[in-house]
Amino acid sequence: MTIEIAKIRSDFQILDQIVNDEPLVYLDSAATTQKPRQVLDAIRAYYEHDNANVHRGVHTLAERATADYESSRDKVRAFINASSRKEVLFTRGTTTALNWVAKFAEQILQPEDEIVISIMEHHSNIIPWQQAAAKTGAVLKFVYLKDGELDMADLRAKVTNQTKFVSITHVSNVLGVINPVKEIAQIAHDHGAIMVVDGAQSTPHMTVDVQDLDCDFFALSGHKMAGPTGIGVLYGKEALLNQMNPIEFGGEMIDFVYEQSATWKELPWKFEAGTPNIAGSIGLGAAVDYLTEIGLDNIHQHEQDLLNYVMPQLREIEGLTIYGPEDNQRRGGVIAFNLDGLHPHDVATALDMEGVAVRAGHHCAQPLIDHLGLPATARASFYIYNTFADCDKLVEAIKLTKAFFGV
Amino acid sequence: MTIEIAKIRSDFQILDQIVNDEPLVYLDSAATTQKPRQVLDAIRAYYEHDNANVHRGVHTLAERATADYESSRDKVRAFINASSRKEVLFTRGTTTALNWVAKFAEQILQPEDEIVISIMEHHSNIIPWQQAAAKTGAVLKFVYLKDGELDMADLRAKVTNQTKFVSITHVSNVLGVINPVKEIAQIAHDHGAIMVVDGAQSTPHMTVDVQDLDCDFFALSGHKMAGPTGIGVLYGKEALLNQMNPIEFGGEMIDFVYEQSATWKELPWKFEAGTPNIAGSIGLGAAVDYLTEIGLDNIHQHEQDLLNYVMPQLREIEGLTIYGPEDNQRRGGVIAFNLDGLHPHDVATALDMEGVAVRAGHHCAQPLIDHLGLPATARASFYIYNTFADCDKLVEAIKLTKAFFGV
Repeated sequence: MTIEIAKIRSDFQILDQIVNDEPLVYLDSAATTQKPRQVLDAIRAYYEHDNANVHRGVHTLAERATADYESSRDKVRAFINASSRKEVLFTRGTTTALNWVAKFAEQILQPEDEIVISIMEHHSNIIPWQQAAAKTGAVLKFVYLKDGELDMADLRAKVTNQTKFVSITHVSNVLGVINPVKEIAQIAHDHGAIMVVDGAQSTPHMTVDVQDLDCDFFALSGHKMAGPTGIGVLYGKEALLNQMNPIEFGGEMIDFVYEQSATWKELPWKFEAGTPNIAGSIGLGAAVDYLTEIGLDNIHQHEQDLLNYVMPQLREIEGLTIYGPEDNQRRGGVIAFNLDGLHPHDVATALDMEGVAVRAGHHCAQPLIDHLGLPATARASFYIYNTFADCDKLVEAIKLTKAFFGV
Repeated sequence: MTIEIAKIRSDFQILDQIVNDEPLVYLDSAATTQKPRQVLDAIRAYYEHDNANVHRGVHTLAERATADYESSRDKVRAFINASSRKEVLFTRGTTTALNWVAKFAEQILQPEDEIVISIMEHHSNIIPWQQAAAKTGAVLKFVYLKDGELDMADLRAKVTNQTKFVSITHVSNVLGVINPVKEIAQIAHDHGAIMVVDGAQSTPHMTVDVQDLDCDFFALSGHKMAGPTGIGVLYGKEALLNQMNPIEFGGEMIDFVYEQSATWKELPWKFEAGTPNIAGSIGLGAAVDYLTEIGLDNIHQHEQDLLNYVMPQLREIEGLTIYGPEDNQRRGGVIAFNLDGLHPHDVATALDMEGVAVRAGHHCAQPLIDHLGLPATARASFYIYNTFADCDKLVEAIKLTKAFFGV
């Protein structure tokens, strides 16, 4: 194994439990990952030693809390290689981050302007754009698929000089496919469009360098990368963030407030109204430390190893269909599948009886599921704590399910 | 004492520390309160046993996480006596909650319509209304003060049939005054206006019954009531929430998503886009349990006891000015003050050298501070863990500060 799996698993106490009389096999990390004790310890240490409100206080705890909070911002900056801490905004998560970008789009878009997204986007990267289009008269265009991947010819045809925003997921949470967002950013920029990347499913699993990708905005969630719930990040290029109006208004984000008007602080605080999720940001900083120590390239390789191990076994199961690219190198550790004759909810329920936690449904990607002509899929997804034994258990549980239902 | 202070203090490990060679005396709970071990334990237990994404999963952990999350909603519902769980929306905090209400106002307000707020509002209850007024052509009116309290005659004069929204803080974070929001709601309703209450400074300290207050919206923050950062609540009457458009768009809040449109889930989920702050809501639920066990009336009485003990001592200090009502029964445990001849930042810094944590500045209420003709104030604020000894230390440290600076 590329990584020290036994050591890693010992950091995740939640994995050491029995579910329905079977040892838990957690294969739902694309929905949310588990959190190592280092992250939980960092949150607890903050609350037990430093907790105070940030930025506004001169007392010792307030200074410590502020230093902790801003230090987490610096960790995230380094993690995604943003060029400045001004470009790292803490949000509630990827959904909030993408909503903010779509709000910014409402500042810019004119009737007949075009927004290009793909059919494999998560609802959080679809509905905000529907809203922006409806409010401005802009047109929302979809790029479709070819061989279970983004159809780049379709993308090249749809991105034109009328395109103002291109927003594409880095890794699909259903197909698992890794999209060539660097190449797409180049295409967007060639047409003067702003490039937005939904990084919720990539940042936890592979090295992300926003300057190398040359995207204009990049969104990520803490809870999908071993961090706590309720915290995420919007990266934006400084020049664009300077043009962008604040989305929420209140304390902390202001310079001066008069009865009828107010002025804003400089970046990044202009966007951070009210008391932030201080403990959440500190937990995210600890997650960044944890993942960095393991190494993002090692994490990606580990998931490749798991895919290379399990995919041939899955593909041998009669009546099992896997969605997304056939080449494992083109995907992250996400496997959406169906079993002939069974509804994916029944599959997930049956797997749960064997202790195997997978998700079933539309995975917040209804347009994709509709496009594939499916009612839903089951989905298994991997992270740093998954093992070959987990893969074996998945295969075995699927076979038992088939036998149980007689399909 | 009304409450078992030694037992309570033992729940807050952070208080047992030395700051600048002195035992910490934390008097900054109006900015954020400390969190008892019961809250930290609940968060940790969630992450170590049940963590999964909510609502979308059929596996065991997902069902447990969903039950935990929705159980916290039920706890909050009971805590503020909302009539239905549909009326309890989880937000990032009070700031987000008030921004949402002001966004709803943008749906309703017409040019010349009026919004009435008070000069003692926190920035989070001012700037969103400035924005709503600017976008709709509505007029933002301020109610001023009389004898350090809200001038009710001014309020009665300003709330007219043109008023569509009245938004007032329940307890001022500077003056400490408890506003008669039940009476104000009646005045607002007599004129057909919607009544909004900023409950950030009241909910932690006194019994709140939104049905008895008959407010239409009520906002609160977890981190000011012994809960974690990054979680708060917007209460709204069901009929109004049904009229209100969602503010954020993404997964979880939808019924159906097509390429060009989408439909929303029912309340309360219509407003909760994306993965919520699951652990935050569970921590808030634990804080509700903790405060309920102590008893909100007991907490209020404890803070009254502290005020009755310390106020006469503070009022005896020459050159010390206290803002807000003279009658302690009309205030919560917040004391904004200044010392003649000293900038409040110097006061706060000097108190910090004695281990006493107070805040100095405009307390996110610049219009109030301007209205009082001040550059800033120092502020001491109490919570359940503060003692008469803390009061003595505050008085002693202020006297030392005066002596040190020779004022």
